[in-house]
Amino acid sequence: MSVTAARGFRAAGVAAGIKKSGRPDLALVVNDGPRADAAGVFTRNKVKAAPVLWSQQVLTSGALRAVVLNSGGANACTGPQGFQTAHATAEKVAEVLGCGAVEVAVCSTGLIGEQLPRETVLAGIDTAAGELTGTPEAGAAAAGSIMTTDTVPKQAQVTDPAGWTVGGTAKGAGMIAPSMATMLAVVTTDAVVDRAVLDAALREAVRYSFDRLDIDGSMSTNDTVLVLASGASGVAADPAVFTAALTRVCRDLAEQMQADAEGVTKRITVRVAGAASEDDAVTVARTIARDALVKTAMFGSDPNWGRVAAAAGYADAAVDPERLDVTINGVLLCKGAVVAGDRADCDLSGKDVLIEVELGLSGGADGHTAEIRTTDLSHAYVEENSAYSS
Amino acid sequence: MSVTAARGFRAAGVAAGIKKSGRPDLALVVNDGPRADAAGVFTRNKVKAAPVLWSQQVLTSGALRAVVLNSGGANACTGPQGFQTAHATAEKVAEVLGCGAVEVAVCSTGLIGEQLPRETVLAGIDTAAGELTGTPEAGAAAAGSIMTTDTVPKQAQVTDPAGWTVGGTAKGAGMIAPSMATMLAVVTTDAVVDRAVLDAALREAVRYSFDRLDIDGSMSTNDTVLVLASGASGVAADPAVFTAALTRVCRDLAEQMQADAEGVTKRITVRVAGAASEDDAVTVARTIARDALVKTAMFGSDPNWGRVAAAAGYADAAVDPERLDVTINGVLLCKGAVVAGDRADCDLSGKDVLIEVELGLSGGADGHTAEIRTTDLSHAYVEENSAYSS
Repeated sequence: MSVTAARGFRAAGVAAGIKKSGRPDLALVVNDGPRADAAGVFTRNKVKAAPVLWSQQVLTSGALRAVVLNSGGANACTGPQGFQTAHATAEKVAEVLGCGAVEVAVCSTGLIGEQLPRETVLAGIDTAAGELTGTPEAGAAAAGSIMTTDTVPKQAQVTDPAGWTVGGTAKGAGMIAPSMATMLAVVTTDAVVDRAVLDAALREAVRYSFDRLDIDGSMSTNDTVLVLASGASGVAADPAVFTAALTRVCRDLAEQMQADAEGVTKRITVRVAGAASEDDAVTVARTIARDALVKTAMFGSDPNWGRVAAAAGYADAAVDPERLDVTINGVLLCKGAVVAGDRADCDLSGKDVLIEVELGLSGGADGHTAEIRTTDLSHAYVEENSAYSS
Repeated sequence: MSVTAARGFRAAGVAAGIKKSGRPDLALVVNDGPRADAAGVFTRNKVKAAPVLWSQQVLTSGALRAVVLNSGGANACTGPQGFQTAHATAEKVAEVLGCGAVEVAVCSTGLIGEQLPRETVLAGIDTAAGELTGTPEAGAAAAGSIMTTDTVPKQAQVTDPAGWTVGGTAKGAGMIAPSMATMLAVVTTDAVVDRAVLDAALREAVRYSFDRLDIDGSMSTNDTVLVLASGASGVAADPAVFTAALTRVCRDLAEQMQADAEGVTKRITVRVAGAASEDDAVTVARTIARDALVKTAMFGSDPNWGRVAAAAGYADAAVDPERLDVTINGVLLCKGAVVAGDRADCDLSGKDVLIEVELGLSGGADGHTAEIRTTDLSHAYVEENSAYSS
């Protein structure tokens, strides 16, 4: 599992003292090669954290030797001082590993608007460097030390019969953009993968995994997904097969994030079919997934399909009410935007809810569909998010 | 106050028996003329309730003799049967008043996807017709009978020195589009106002009142704002003066809706200045006002400005982080997207919160600003909306 599953990688996770709680808060993932190909996807928020600005810059080379990640502070809205901290962090990693700072990506997560304790971070890197190993335990330690409001570490792995592996870890309960709170993910592979292929594969994988998870429509300043390829298996991966494996790992991580989202009591999948285009399918599914009235109804185990129909109706997409069907947990409740079934037949007592919306504007082989995963809006969500910074 | 403040109008509000609780649920507002000019603004949701489809159709004439409103059922997603109910409702009002059904608008609010009890509604119209008077009490009764989750009736009035009055009532806690739950408003005036002027005035008034209130980003199938002009004062109103008076009444009603929004513990005003355009100012203010993390922070009286900066950063508008300032309740907390003040100096213990965002992209006489009013995301909001239909 995790970032040490693929050959050529070592990792560590330590308690550097950034978090006041004393919990693990700093992770280091090192690529020992022979290759150092890498790709990244970052938040589309215009307000970007210092580590995002740093990592975007260093990734233009397409190569990374290491990633250093911290929880306990986002290093966002911290100005030149914050950028210098991100830079110093990369320099320190470069120093202990004997590589260049431009080969080191930095990821941070936590509260916006506070400076990171720079010396504490740098000392933590020394500690982490001393604990670097390629064991599963080291991967798990790295996974544990990037947690913020996560209650469990997230790890995933796919091994291909051709002899290469993709493994990864993630934190957070959102998506690249938007996201509930920062999400960070590092995925490693020992396949031999061209840089251009790696970049294209990551964009495709993110599109159908983290980008299809929408907890509350917010978008973080820090979201980052990185993939590092060591080539240590010596096996050149077929681009399509590799993309599929990377997508599986990212989807697995995204599902773990959904299950562990802040305040979650229901795991909701919104599936839209028959849209005029794939973009429209995503837009309708996302609008339903974000609707506060839909989300509170689900929290109340209330199959209030009228709210689903209303949300579809205000989505910025082609919707014809006369063709709009809504099915919840297998019970057709609304056909052509008209009441069709009995709410009482619809059982929402379980933890999983499937909302299916048929738009009737495409079908068969030309049908456009999309799925967005989200969670309900619960008392625990309000509780957790009303008492975060202070 | 209310719809009977202007001369030429009678109203009534009765308990017709649509609501199981037995509370008032049907209102009638009648324009006795001499003129019958009218204008309306309706939800932009593609899924429109039957009464919206009916009222949009009859309003193409620009004339209305009466409006009948019910709570206890939205008559949305009810198909041909629902439309026939809306039609029969207008026919019944026409019959008791001796006018044409095409001179009667219909408004409904309540749960989506259930048929209204048609005979109960028609009988209620008989009762209401028997109670029609032009007294303030009748206006208040009408205001009371359109309430759903409202805890207080909403009424407003402006009287112009020239001798005419604008008065109105509203229900709901949202905006025309989007809205938290259905909002309905009926405004009456005894000024002599051209139909074209009335229509333009209403669009302008709504734009700066109900459209600037955003409780949770949802958009109802039933939102309707109507204005009826009797001309009974015999005074022709100056279009600009009339527009200003109508806007004041609508803003007053919108502020009452904000103060009575579901689960409200904080009244939040988001004021954006220095935007590249007015549309951008609205977009940034609305994005912040809708952000669940901002809203939960406010519920927790937590001046977490980082969430405000992050929300501005993902708004679909021109935003330059280096010019982005955030001030909460008068304390400058963030300058150029960098921490500038101490959160501890910011007192959010009161009920009113003012979030000011300066974008620095326009200024002075060419400055583009906008204000959106919203509320916090509280436990009570979740409670109320998780137990609505069932």
